[in-house]
Amino acid sequence: MADTIKVLAICGSLRQGSYNRMALKVAEENLAPGMTLEVFGGMAEIPLYNEDVKAKGFPPVVAELRAKIKAADALLFVTPEYNYSMPGVLKNAIDWASRPPDQPFDGKPVAMMGASMGLFGTTRAQHHLRQTCVFLNMFPLNKPEVMIAQAQNKFDAQGKLTDEPTRKFIADLMAALASWTKRLKG
Amino acid sequence: MADTIKVLAICGSLRQGSYNRMALKVAEENLAPGMTLEVFGGMAEIPLYNEDVKAKGFPPVVAELRAKIKAADALLFVTPEYNYSMPGVLKNAIDWASRPPDQPFDGKPVAMMGASMGLFGTTRAQHHLRQTCVFLNMFPLNKPEVMIAQAQNKFDAQGKLTDEPTRKFIADLMAALASWTKRLKG
Amino acid sequence: MADTIKVLAICGSLRQGSYNRMALKVAEENLAPGMTLEVFGGMAEIPLYNEDVKAKGFPPVVAELRAKIKAADALLFVTPEYNYSMPGVLKNAIDWASRPPDQPFDGKPVAMMGASMGLFGTTRAQHHLRQTCVFLNMFPLNKPEVMIAQAQNKFDAQGKLTDEPTRKFIADLMAALASWTKRLKG
Amino acid sequence: MADTIKVLAICGSLRQGSYNRMALKVAEENLAPGMTLEVFGGMAEIPLYNEDVKAKGFPPVVAELRAKIKAADALLFVTPEYNYSMPGVLKNAIDWASRPPDQPFDGKPVAMMGASMGLFGTTRAQHHLRQTCVFLNMFPLNKPEVMIAQAQNKFDAQGKLTDEPTRKFIADLMAALASWTKRLKG
Repeated sequence: MADTIKVLAICGSLRQGSYNRMALKVAEENLAPGMTLEVFGGMAEIPLYNEDVKAKGFPPVVAELRAKIKAADALLFVTPEYNYSMPGVLKNAIDWASRPPDQPFDGKPVAMMGASMGLFGTTRAQHHLRQTCVFLNMFPLNKPEVMIAQAQNKFDAQGKLTDEPTRKFIADLMAALASWTKRLKG
Repeated sequence: MADTIKVLAICGSLRQGSYNRMALKVAEENLAPGMTLEVFGGMAEIPLYNEDVKAKGFPPVVAELRAKIKAADALLFVTPEYNYSMPGVLKNAIDWASRPPDQPFDGKPVAMMGASMGLFGTTRAQHHLRQTCVFLNMFPLNKPEVMIAQAQNKFDAQGKLTDEPTRKFIADLMAALASWTKRLKG
Repeated sequence: MADTIKVLAICGSLRQGSYNRMALKVAEENLAPGMTLEVFGGMAEIPLYNEDVKAKGFPPVVAELRAKIKAADALLFVTPEYNYSMPGVLKNAIDWASRPPDQPFDGKPVAMMGASMGLFGTTRAQHHLRQTCVFLNMFPLNKPEVMIAQAQNKFDAQGKLTDEPTRKFIADLMAALASWTKRLKG
Repeated sequence: MADTIKVLAICGSLRQGSYNRMALKVAEENLAPGMTLEVFGGMAEIPLYNEDVKAKGFPPVVAELRAKIKAADALLFVTPEYNYSMPGVLKNAIDWASRPPDQPFDGKPVAMMGASMGLFGTTRAQHHLRQTCVFLNMFPLNKPEVMIAQAQNKFDAQGKLTDEPTRKFIADLMAALASWTKRLKG
C-alpha cells in the first residue's frame, strides 16, 4: 500500500533489561497510522569492523542489516549514551553498514531517541549521531528530541512505561517521522 | 627508573595496512627520552559491549586492557575517522574498559593522533574522543594536534613515512606527552 | 512567481576583505535558476544580545533581520571559523533573531559554507552551526559541504576566485539549496 | 603571596537578573583558601569583532580584558546556553581577546559552569566552549561539571541560592580550580 511507512529500528544497547529496549517497545505500541516497525535483531552478531574482512565481502549479518536499511522508508535509532558519545556497538554497526558500494543510509529520514539513568538523557550521544548523519546524508528530525532522563523512574520492574509524558513524546516522535518521511518523498 | 614514562597505545583501526598503524610505528620510532610504548594487541578480540556479559565479569581481553591502562603512565589514542566520529571499534574498547569499578582511564595524560585519506584528517573523530575524555577524566594534550590528512601521499607502499613534517609532528607529540605526564605527576 | 526562491545570506565576518565575503560574491554569481539572493547588510550594527534590552523591544536592525529571515524561502550562512567554533558575531545575530515570539528560523531550508586560511576550512564552525540549527528547527543541507581551506590561494588580490573547483562547489551548493527548498515546500 | 590564586570570571549573560550572575555570586562566596575572584565588568562594552578595527589596535575595553586575562592565574567561564551553543556575547569576547600577538588564554587553567531554565543545563554550550579551549590551549577542569538546570527553582526572587547541592557543586568547583591551578604550576 502506497501509504505504508516501513521503519527499521536500530538499538545501541545489547542488554536484555535495557531502558532503551523498553523505550523501543513503547515506540512499537505507538506507531503512526500506516507505519510498520521492525527491530533489527542481529546487533549482537555484528563483528568489529575490519576493512580486511570487508574486502572479502560483507559478513552475512551485515549484509542483512544493509538490505533491511535499504528496504526501509525510514530509520529509528535508539541509543544509550556511554562516555558522552554513542555506544561503540551502535557506531560499529553504522560503520559496517555504511561501507561502499551503495551506501544504504543515503537519503533516509531518521528519528532518534535515547534513555539514560542520568540527568542529561543522551543529549551528547544524539548530537554525535547527528554529526554522523551529515556524513551519511541522512535526514534526522529536529523535533521532538526524545531524551528520557532518569529512566529508572519512568519504567516499572516489568519494563512497562509508567510516565505518560514520555509515552506522548515517543508517540509524537513516531507521528513526526511519518510526516517527515512523506514530506521528503514528495 | 623514576623517569620512565610507560605509554600504552590504543589504535582504532584493525586493518593490517592501516595508515593509523603506520603512524603508530612512527611514534614508536620517535619516543621521548625515557619513554616506552606498548601497543595494545587485543583490539580485534574485544567483544561488543553487553552489560549482561559484563555482569558476569570482564572478558579476559578486556581485563587485560584495563590492567594495561591502569599500569600506564600515559595513553596514546590513534584513531581513524569513520562517518565523522570515532570508529565503533575504538569506542567499544573504551566503553568496555571504562566500566566500574576502578575506572582505569581516570586521571591519565593522553595524546591523540589520526590519519585519513581525506582532507580533514580526523578532526571530527578527535573532537568526539576529547568529549569522551571529559567524562572519563582523562587529560588530553591540546597541542600538537596530529591530523594526518591525505595519508596515502605521506606513506610509501612499504608503509614507511615519506613526509618529514609529519614525522616531526609525531615526534613533537611524543615529546609533549612526556612533558605533560611529568607536569601532571608534579 | 511561484518558482522564485528568495535566499537571505548571513555572513559572520565583518572585515571588508574577508574571504567569506568573496565566497558570498561567488554564490551571488552562481545562483540557481529562479533564485534571488540578498545579503543582510546590518550585521555590523547588531548590538550584543541583552535580554533586558530585548524586553523593551527588538532593536530596529534586529527587527529588520527577523523580517528578512521570515520573508526568505531559504537561508545561506557564510561563516569563518574562530577558535574552533562560529564567530561570536554570527552567533550573536542568531541569538537576537531567534528570540520569541515567532521564531523566524523555524522550518527554513539552509545552506552553509565557509572559508579559512587554515587547512581544515571551517569544519568545526559548521558542525557547531548545525547543532544550533537543530534547536531552531532549521533544515541544513547535508551536501555539498563547502569548506574553502587555504582561501588565500584561491582568491586573487582583487578578491576574484581563481579556483574553478571551488566555484563549482559553490554553484552546486546553490543548486542543491534550490532543490532542497522545493522539496521541503512539497 | 605565593599561594594566592587570582581568578578572572567572564560571564556570557548581560541581563541584570541573570541566573548565571547569581551563580557567579555563589562562586564569589565560596572561594577556595587564598583565592581571589574578579568579575570582568566590561562585557557589555565589547564591540562586535571586526578585523579591520583590530588592525588599528585593540579597543580599550578589549585591551583591558586581555590584560586581566594575562594577569590571572586561572579563569572561570560562566555561561548560559543559547540555541545549543555558547552565547554570541561570550564567544565574541573570546574572539577579540584571543587575537595575536600574545594570545592571553594560552596555558590558563579553566573552570566553567552554567545555569539554564531548561532540563539540560548548558551541557551543549560547555562542550562547545571546551572545543574552543583546545584551540586556545586552555586547560579546563573535567570535574565537577556544574550545570544548573531549572535554575528558576534554585534561586529565590532576591537571587539568593536556595539549593544546597548546587552551592556545594560550586564550592567544589572553586576548590578543584585551586588544586588544578597549583598542579599545573608545578
